[in-house]
Amino acid sequence: MSSTPIFAERSDKNQIEEGLQLAPKFDQDGLIPVVTTDCKTGEVLMVAYMNREALQQTIEIGEAVYWSRSRQVLWHKGATSGMVQKVKEICIDCDQDAIVLRVEMIGGACCHVGYRSCFYRSIPFGEDAKRAGMDRPLTLSLTGGEKVFDPNEVYGKK
Amino acid sequence: MSSTPIFAERSDKNQIEEGLQLAPKFDQDGLIPVVTTDCKTGEVLMVAYMNREALQQTIEIGEAVYWSRSRQVLWHKGATSGMVQKVKEICIDCDQDAIVLRVEMIGGACCHVGYRSCFYRSIPFGEDAKRAGMDRPLTLSLTGGEKVFDPNEVYGKK
Repeated sequence: MSSTPIFAERSDKNQIEEGLQLAPKFDQDGLIPVVTTDCKTGEVLMVAYMNREALQQTIEIGEAVYWSRSRQVLWHKGATSGMVQKVKEICIDCDQDAIVLRVEMIGGACCHVGYRSCFYRSIPFGEDAKRAGMDRPLTLSLTGGEKVFDPNEVYGKK
Repeated sequence: MSSTPIFAERSDKNQIEEGLQLAPKFDQDGLIPVVTTDCKTGEVLMVAYMNREALQQTIEIGEAVYWSRSRQVLWHKGATSGMVQKVKEICIDCDQDAIVLRVEMIGGACCHVGYRSCFYRSIPFGEDAKRAGMDRPLTLSLTGGEKVFDPNEVYGKK
């Protein structure tokens, strides 16, 4: 991949942590994890990944563009479903190896399963987990509310 | 790594997405990404990683235990600084390959640099990025407020 002028070279720890130059770290697969949150509620909607090109495009067009690891293509979120994510803020962390994207969701849902957020199930912990028994698979609770859309209607039958 | 009875085997897509058995996916390094949020404000505090043992311990003790990729050890957050993270909810996503941890922060800060959240800088995008010029490294803005503590006092001089 050719160099991307908007990304600085990563130098010393102090520059990365305290400096004001964008110097993102991409992992061995060329990806950086992205946490996408709803700009209105703060709710975490999804975790996805960007490569250099996806991050550059997101910065340029102000709509979320990810790298699809399953399909190995740039993934302009909403191109199929119409549910684009309009960027309101992009933050990067201390090590510059993770991104938070605050977005306005068009269409009211984010997850391909049909829920508003991908995080629609919770894991028992502490006393609840012990009561359930730590010698067998834990049972999740559905906490994401009702589905917002029917994936079969939006994406077609699989 | 021996099997962990609280995690089910991953089988078909429908069971993983719509089922209620905990069947987390660990990547080629044995890790799953974790987004930690403040249970009171919803703010994203940090992105870290857990291996099987870290996730099992977090579930058991109800405090965040991560895998430190830099030090290659289990990392009971707050063991050094006293700023433990008490778990209020653990959610898993559709593919069961990412986790959201809602925590109560003890001590009011999360980031080792001294800020409340690791995401204390924002990246310009859209017209702002174009005005800055897309032919050179972008300049970040400090958006995380004041530092909550002095890392040199908490962790000692590096």
